[in-house]
Amino acid sequence: MYDLIIIGSGPAGLSAAVYGKRAGLDLLVIEENPMSGGQVLNTYEVDNYLGMPGMNGFDMGMKFKEHADTAGAQFQTAHVAEIIDEGHKKIVKIADGTSFEARTLILATGAQHKLLGASGEETYKGKGVSYCATCDGAFFRKKDVAVVGGGDVAVEDAIYLSRMCSKVYLIHRRDSLRAAKGLQDKLKMCENVEVLWDRTVQDIYGSDVVEGVKLSHVKEKTEENLAVEGVFIAVGMHPNTEAFRGIVSCDEQGYVMAGEDCATQTPGIFAAGDLRTKQVRQIVTAVADGACAVASVERYLTAQK
Amino acid sequence: MYDLIIIGSGPAGLSAAVYGKRAGLDLLVIEENPMSGGQVLNTYEVDNYLGMPGMNGFDMGMKFKEHADTAGAQFQTAHVAEIIDEGHKKIVKIADGTSFEARTLILATGAQHKLLGASGEETYKGKGVSYCATCDGAFFRKKDVAVVGGGDVAVEDAIYLSRMCSKVYLIHRRDSLRAAKGLQDKLKMCENVEVLWDRTVQDIYGSDVVEGVKLSHVKEKTEENLAVEGVFIAVGMHPNTEAFRGIVSCDEQGYVMAGEDCATQTPGIFAAGDLRTKQVRQIVTAVADGACAVASVERYLTAQK
Repeated sequence: MYDLIIIGSGPAGLSAAVYGKRAGLDLLVIEENPMSGGQVLNTYEVDNYLGMPGMNGFDMGMKFKEHADTAGAQFQTAHVAEIIDEGHKKIVKIADGTSFEARTLILATGAQHKLLGASGEETYKGKGVSYCATCDGAFFRKKDVAVVGGGDVAVEDAIYLSRMCSKVYLIHRRDSLRAAKGLQDKLKMCENVEVLWDRTVQDIYGSDVVEGVKLSHVKEKTEENLAVEGVFIAVGMHPNTEAFRGIVSCDEQGYVMAGEDCATQTPGIFAAGDLRTKQVRQIVTAVADGACAVASVERYLTAQK
Repeated sequence: MYDLIIIGSGPAGLSAAVYGKRAGLDLLVIEENPMSGGQVLNTYEVDNYLGMPGMNGFDMGMKFKEHADTAGAQFQTAHVAEIIDEGHKKIVKIADGTSFEARTLILATGAQHKLLGASGEETYKGKGVSYCATCDGAFFRKKDVAVVGGGDVAVEDAIYLSRMCSKVYLIHRRDSLRAAKGLQDKLKMCENVEVLWDRTVQDIYGSDVVEGVKLSHVKEKTEENLAVEGVFIAVGMHPNTEAFRGIVSCDEQGYVMAGEDCATQTPGIFAAGDLRTKQVRQIVTAVADGACAVASVERYLTAQK
């Protein structure tokens, strides 16, 4: 039986692995993706993690994973099929039927991009539809593209794409952006970005690949076709907590209810990173959660002895 | 009038500067020391800040400062003499009488080492008495030294010093250590470290420099002299909040009362890093506070407009 199983290996899970190993815990990290790093891997440039200015997200993810490896963390690539909470023993079943047991769990599976819900979205995924400008932008060099959304990520994506694409349309369903003012200021300086206000995307159309989007004007009730070869969707996140709904309390949006100490309402189970209820979802707050969750695990284990 | 003045430039203050500049805030950082970085500067090796394994603390402090410089943060070296809270306007007076005004403040002055209180402690400071093993350990190569304390830092200091000193005595007033088990295990592997249980340091004596310590046995009520040339004191921290006691609520130990959002009970004033009430005081939790404090500043400023 492990002291601790960490499920997920983005910044929160990897930080928990480093802190856990340094605390002398016998631990296992279970990650369903072939690579650790989480959303960071798909980020072109991270510029706000103190000490690592202007770092490529993929490189940062690799550095994070190497750190956990150096600390001696053990990894298992597997999809978690079921978790059984027997109090002092937590059983994690993976897809092939194998079970792992631990005294404590840290849930750190993060969050993922929301789908737009337009027709053609699924059909053209990977054929012009992308959820990650920084992963796929280079495929659209000197082409016209659209970004859908109005938050920080949508504006960041538009700015990023403006460097390589001929023209970037930012499509937003409202008449103002939610994004930070500094980002909006930067956006205005991009001459090849045009914001299309009050429009929703009804359909993504094409042949083998995307050729355009059909837009609906929210106020004028008109429709128009916009010829683009790429559609970058940035309309928010949703927490990867489906597998945990029965064992920990979640809020209406599905985020695991846990405070700064990362303690869920279920003894011995902790939640670190983007999947927990918190105001600021940033790499550094996820990394901090890893440290806080392990401190809580240590306190819990000491109290059990 | 600035949008934000950040007082202190350790990891929390520097992270707040990076996030603040990226958010487009007009901000000033006031630091009383000639160098930014805070306690990190005096740390030999930091191994738990994800992505930067095994980094020298001084180098890390420099990297942190460079990041804030790259983001465009403006710095002022000065001791804050007084803060006047006029609601929407906060006035920060520095020692030479100059005043700076801002809509919001982030307090990020951290914490500092507690004194042991033994006679001779002040006399021999810098002449054998040190509060930072990683800064001063190299001066005691192949000499006998004592470390006083029983927490993580004391044990870390003893382990570090064992690499360069002939003999390290760890002096603790109790019969068990508070330090993390992993650290205690590591300590046991250091053959030249001897733990002297149930002893307090009554006196630090010497000629021009330290020659030894007089110990008192707590249970046996005996005294003994121990010949050492260095005394490393690691008996805890105290928050640098004296200048803020009148404008924000502090707990009994002097920590500024503020939760994960870093909001104090005083509107427009926020507390980030080791000086606020929190369970885990680590570099990464201070850096995370910088991000969360700026998010709270932005919300406050938006609400004021």
